[in-house]
Amino acid sequence: MKLRTTWEGGCSLIDEIVKQFPLLQMQQDGKRLVYLDSGATTQRPQAVLDAVQHFYEHDNANPHRGVYQVAERATAAYEDSRTEVAAFLNAQKKEEIIFTRNATEALNLIAYSWGLHNLKAGDKVAVSILEHHSNLIPWQQVCRVTGAELVIFYTNPDGTFSDEEIEKKITKGVKLVAFTHVSNVLGLVSPVEKIAARAHAVGAVCVLDCAQSAPHIKLDVTKLGVDFLAFSGHKLYSPLGIGVLWGRKELLEEMPPFLTGGDMIESVREQNATWAPLPQKFEAGTQNAGGAVGLAAAIRWINSVGFETIARRERDVYNYAWEKLSKLPHLTLYGTPEGEHAGAIAFNVDEAHPHDVASILDADAVCVRAGHHCAQPLLHHMGLTACCRASFAVYNTREDVDALTESLLKVRKWLGYGA
Amino acid sequence: MKLRTTWEGGCSLIDEIVKQFPLLQMQQDGKRLVYLDSGATTQRPQAVLDAVQHFYEHDNANPHRGVYQVAERATAAYEDSRTEVAAFLNAQKKEEIIFTRNATEALNLIAYSWGLHNLKAGDKVAVSILEHHSNLIPWQQVCRVTGAELVIFYTNPDGTFSDEEIEKKITKGVKLVAFTHVSNVLGLVSPVEKIAARAHAVGAVCVLDCAQSAPHIKLDVTKLGVDFLAFSGHKLYSPLGIGVLWGRKELLEEMPPFLTGGDMIESVREQNATWAPLPQKFEAGTQNAGGAVGLAAAIRWINSVGFETIARRERDVYNYAWEKLSKLPHLTLYGTPEGEHAGAIAFNVDEAHPHDVASILDADAVCVRAGHHCAQPLLHHMGLTACCRASFAVYNTREDVDALTESLLKVRKWLGYGA
Repeated sequence: MKLRTTWEGGCSLIDEIVKQFPLLQMQQDGKRLVYLDSGATTQRPQAVLDAVQHFYEHDNANPHRGVYQVAERATAAYEDSRTEVAAFLNAQKKEEIIFTRNATEALNLIAYSWGLHNLKAGDKVAVSILEHHSNLIPWQQVCRVTGAELVIFYTNPDGTFSDEEIEKKITKGVKLVAFTHVSNVLGLVSPVEKIAARAHAVGAVCVLDCAQSAPHIKLDVTKLGVDFLAFSGHKLYSPLGIGVLWGRKELLEEMPPFLTGGDMIESVREQNATWAPLPQKFEAGTQNAGGAVGLAAAIRWINSVGFETIARRERDVYNYAWEKLSKLPHLTLYGTPEGEHAGAIAFNVDEAHPHDVASILDADAVCVRAGHHCAQPLLHHMGLTACCRASFAVYNTREDVDALTESLLKVRKWLGYGA
Repeated sequence: MKLRTTWEGGCSLIDEIVKQFPLLQMQQDGKRLVYLDSGATTQRPQAVLDAVQHFYEHDNANPHRGVYQVAERATAAYEDSRTEVAAFLNAQKKEEIIFTRNATEALNLIAYSWGLHNLKAGDKVAVSILEHHSNLIPWQQVCRVTGAELVIFYTNPDGTFSDEEIEKKITKGVKLVAFTHVSNVLGLVSPVEKIAARAHAVGAVCVLDCAQSAPHIKLDVTKLGVDFLAFSGHKLYSPLGIGVLWGRKELLEEMPPFLTGGDMIESVREQNATWAPLPQKFEAGTQNAGGAVGLAAAIRWINSVGFETIARRERDVYNYAWEKLSKLPHLTLYGTPEGEHAGAIAFNVDEAHPHDVASILDADAVCVRAGHHCAQPLLHHMGLTACCRASFAVYNTREDVDALTESLLKVRKWLGYGA
């Protein structure tokens, strides 16, 4: 495996990026904070925090409701954010962008609105073993209610998919295929176009969970070949409480609404109601316009850095981390350094519980996540109940990896194993 | 009707309140902004904006997921916010507080999780004619799916409820009664304890929409006598994107989850899952911890002002507004000044479309809402398709009402009616 040994773009640019994140300037017990949990949630650059603050100080009103100038600014801020998201995904139709709270809500929306109304006993739903619970349990529930069968397609031991498994599991009768673009545990990039093509070949619609890919990979819905995708703003340098569902217009138009209430109606009588056109049909009640403004600011920030730069840096950090961690004694890395990666490396220290590892690293101000990572079936498939995960964003550096590896060397000593 | 003629607390205290709201310091075309649309969404005091900013700059991580210090602070910030909300509602059990995006989502949660699993053909659901679409359409949908009958209980022409109507419509066979604490159009306070007692007498559960009451009236779940209540943070001086469902623990425990995904599970296998205890069971995916922190800050801010002061000021502004508006020529006020009010006055100017009225007021920097106020059946019941609404919060003053009335005097002139 070829490793890059120097940053392209130079250290000053890295510093320029890191210093835009207020939380990353913090010290913990006199130590520089090393945040390696961006797969759970990223930190926010000052530009995003400022954009949200500006909205509340100048443009805050209930979008779509008022005809006065402040309300018109609120509506414009909210709808301009939708336009930014559409461009971010290269979606040709702005009304295909539905704002949700997070990827989880977006996936549930598909399960309730598409799943309950299109699946029946005898049908199959295929999901991969890599899935985060948010792209598994909604399908379990839909299958339970409709009588459809849930089929799992598995990975090889290293976390990659074989063509045979895809062809064996995604067969006639499968009406929906849901899978993740990037594993939140292993950081491996799934072969989206291959799986989507197979899904469409058997007549299934295809749902892509982009929660872990959106911050790392330029998403293009004209190329991915899927029918729905979902991501969370908070893993993309945005505030909490905002997420996105993208779906093909013709599918979204056929689907009944999910949540009902204000702003999603055309006409309401005492006993019945008709629905507003897309995207309002799926956005009941007052939406998180401040969150949408923050997401749009994050997208502008990402565009100002550029996905090429993001990918180059993150790839360097990933490769450097894999190389350094693979040389540590008593440490097991999961997955494979081969192929495309984004964002995460999973590992365990021999005879150490992952929670203990994370706590010991925390004493060095190194933040990693430990546990089942909301992917219990995957961990079970890997023969594990828990592991540690270091996950990266554009603000991470080789120095962060050095801090991680130095701290990891202390773990077994602290736990009394000697080395 | 007795009107208060002076502020209790003095003008300096009013100024102290108003100047805490950055957006209210704005000028529009050289005119002081007069914001009379708090029923749609309130403005946020600096203390709330600062609390959210502080969270993102110091404590931001994914709550409940990490064992490192930043994540523990995020979890504490989120769960401490729940504790603040529980105290705000005088809820005895913290786990009865479920964070949602807004009141709409909370009401949909009840409809999906309680409604779909407890209603059947032959049952009835009773809702009042006052309801916002968010507390009507979810019940229309549940009735459509389950075969239950939707019964509407009406108000008198002045917007008040008669005992006879309550007794006639809430009868044996009604399994759920849903109604609003305060009408978002008329500002009238519903007789909650009477309706709740009647609901319980016939064996129904009782859902209270507190979106329009929470900012104005001290809510106490030990006294209201209802089984569920919902409100939105953004109408309560908080950021957008955070709301609350409160429910009785024994009901919430019996209900299946609504959204599924991360953080709401106990154990997940490939084909099935078991659920976490309350409140996590109803909080799938990464929650809006920043929003919850903002809501808690808003509650602390409200407590620092005090509901007595809020009610006294708002009552004075309401009474002053009713008195002044009732003297204007060519203006119709809806509802009645008798009884308890909170937050809103609805009106129309003769021969002027409400949208035109709102636009003309906007030229004087007076912000009111015009339209059906997401309450089409109520407006239809009142013989209207649209009206104007001035709605108040604690930062409104008699000067705001003066600006409103002065501007209203121009409307018919602008529209060419002469006066």
